[in-house]
Amino acid sequence: MRQVSGDASVLRRLNSDAILRILRGRELATLTELAAAAGVSRPTAEGIVEELLADGWVEECAEDERADRQRGRPARRFRFRASSGHVAGVHIDSSSLQVMVCDLVGEVRAVRRQPLPADTPVPDRLSAVAELVRLAAADAGLTVAELAVVGVGTTGVVDGEGRVVKSIVLPGWTGLHLHAELSARLPAPVVVENDMRLAVTAEHWRGAARGCDDVVYLFAADRIGMGLLIGGRVHRGAHAASGEIGSQPNDNWSAFRHVMDYSMAVEPGELRGGRQSAEFAVGRARAGDEKARLAVREFGRALAAGLITVVNPLDPEMVIIGGDLSSVGDLLVEPIQEVLDEHCLYPPRAVVSGLGGECIAVGAVRLALDHAERLLFTLPA
Amino acid sequence: MRQVSGDASVLRRLNSDAILRILRGRELATLTELAAAAGVSRPTAEGIVEELLADGWVEECAEDERADRQRGRPARRFRFRASSGHVAGVHIDSSSLQVMVCDLVGEVRAVRRQPLPADTPVPDRLSAVAELVRLAAADAGLTVAELAVVGVGTTGVVDGEGRVVKSIVLPGWTGLHLHAELSARLPAPVVVENDMRLAVTAEHWRGAARGCDDVVYLFAADRIGMGLLIGGRVHRGAHAASGEIGSQPNDNWSAFRHVMDYSMAVEPGELRGGRQSAEFAVGRARAGDEKARLAVREFGRALAAGLITVVNPLDPEMVIIGGDLSSVGDLLVEPIQEVLDEHCLYPPRAVVSGLGGECIAVGAVRLALDHAERLLFTLPA
Repeated sequence: MRQVSGDASVLRRLNSDAILRILRGRELATLTELAAAAGVSRPTAEGIVEELLADGWVEECAEDERADRQRGRPARRFRFRASSGHVAGVHIDSSSLQVMVCDLVGEVRAVRRQPLPADTPVPDRLSAVAELVRLAAADAGLTVAELAVVGVGTTGVVDGEGRVVKSIVLPGWTGLHLHAELSARLPAPVVVENDMRLAVTAEHWRGAARGCDDVVYLFAADRIGMGLLIGGRVHRGAHAASGEIGSQPNDNWSAFRHVMDYSMAVEPGELRGGRQSAEFAVGRARAGDEKARLAVREFGRALAAGLITVVNPLDPEMVIIGGDLSSVGDLLVEPIQEVLDEHCLYPPRAVVSGLGGECIAVGAVRLALDHAERLLFTLPA
Repeated sequence: MRQVSGDASVLRRLNSDAILRILRGRELATLTELAAAAGVSRPTAEGIVEELLADGWVEECAEDERADRQRGRPARRFRFRASSGHVAGVHIDSSSLQVMVCDLVGEVRAVRRQPLPADTPVPDRLSAVAELVRLAAADAGLTVAELAVVGVGTTGVVDGEGRVVKSIVLPGWTGLHLHAELSARLPAPVVVENDMRLAVTAEHWRGAARGCDDVVYLFAADRIGMGLLIGGRVHRGAHAASGEIGSQPNDNWSAFRHVMDYSMAVEPGELRGGRQSAEFAVGRARAGDEKARLAVREFGRALAAGLITVVNPLDPEMVIIGGDLSSVGDLLVEPIQEVLDEHCLYPPRAVVSGLGGECIAVGAVRLALDHAERLLFTLPA
């Protein structure tokens, strides 16, 4: 932590933070522009920029990039040096791990993915996460210690301290202090969040929910999950347990049975889970099987019935279908839109996520970037 | 509208607003305290306070209220004059009207209630509202024109312009521009909002939700409604249609059938609606009828099944049971809490509203006060 020795240092650090923030918010800026925007004198701005140049946070743009160089002596222009820092986003799924390394403006530098069975022992899974972060960082020419923050998205209910309060898909995961365990294995600051909330974060940052305030996000893959964007913010809930469908007394969210019934009827010997049954039915539907088409349609309508239990009370502008089953696309969206149109006073538009299987890693990167900003741009206490 | 003739006037009005705001936020203040808090000189503060005294916004507290009068010449102390303004809160229900008149600190000055059948023609209902507002204002010694704002809560979906987009309980109400119709009949600014959102507003202001951020409010009376407090704010939704249960494909929210079945079985000749059936069953349950007790219990469990569809995704800290059926109290709360405990990872506490049948009028008063503050403390454009 940087030492702050008095009021003058504090002021200088504040001004320095201000100028760095201004540079992050635009392409290029001259000293005159920076001084005006930060409310400091031009010599003060110049002194700060020289320091930021020396520390590697800022770079001067080259002469030939200056559009106005014909008009006499051009003003020096500066920009934020995106490669001055990097973060990693990690997705711990029931069947795989994924790591994405990005620079401070979110440009992807490396991606690594690895299958990992659900029954992998907890210590092995934790080691595998640490190793995959190390490999992805190396792909980007970095050590783990050079990462500003590692953001981690995991299946399960995650509390404010990064403890997994409940996981039904990963054995041994319930009760795990994931933040502490990964902090012990990674020489970088770690921040942990529930995967559904990161998927919504990703949609809001770079997906279908850009510019939206109220969105219900449906995650359809091995299981059904939900994420909520409310009033422009990802909803956490009173115990950070938002988005859980949980056990429900009525017939809500029992959508998989339609495709599982179909799979059992067609190939009784083949035991398929919900997702496999859905993929099987979708394949046969695309090949022209009418019964398969009906089963997929009923699957979509049942998902919509579950969605309506929250869409009617929340009144969102959009429903996003994400997760691996979003690749089913129109076959799923059409029956969902149909049921929304039948039952909602203001039917939200149902759209398929364009982020695919990477959405949670992307959300973990955004989480890491937000955390990095707080670490980098905050005065020590 | 007050004329503003230049920069000096604008500045004076801003300072005047600032001092009025400061006085509204505390019991008493001296000129020295006001000058310091508003960041103006003591003579400026004195000039503004004299003007506010003359206009009736502020009053000087009497000599004998001053605790420190023995210590030499006491400083003059001032307070906001609550009776300088009044608002009304109106509740338009399917079977009655209610009007509450309060001063600017929310002290109740008059209440009027009147039954009004659902099949009352629209013009008669509108006239009845205007007349009841007039009578309640008169009870408080005021004319309608002296009301700063009239806040109105109505059943139905209400859009941002105060138009009733949909009402299932009041014939002719759908499509009514309630704001325009009431503005034409009341010589005071009118603001219109959906009743469920006002019920939550009331709970947050003066009820069980004080100090809470995330609450699901269940309104149980002639119909079932819902209000949501999310992140400390009453949730509106993308089309101001939040809280609608609407039509649902599954068996959710069909709670009334349990008590209606009971009523039909016991007294087949007596046709009772949902609420009447509930009240009938509750009466017999309290008198010791075991079958009635079971029917009320199933009614509560079915309400809870509906609640869980939103409680699990939203993760609130509390569920409030309001509306006229909240008087059933423990007979309803116990089975609801039981089902929440069975199905929620973090079961929210189920509590009965203490505001009773007045909750929506109280919320309408709060709406009117908020609107009055914006009207009173905002510079003309």
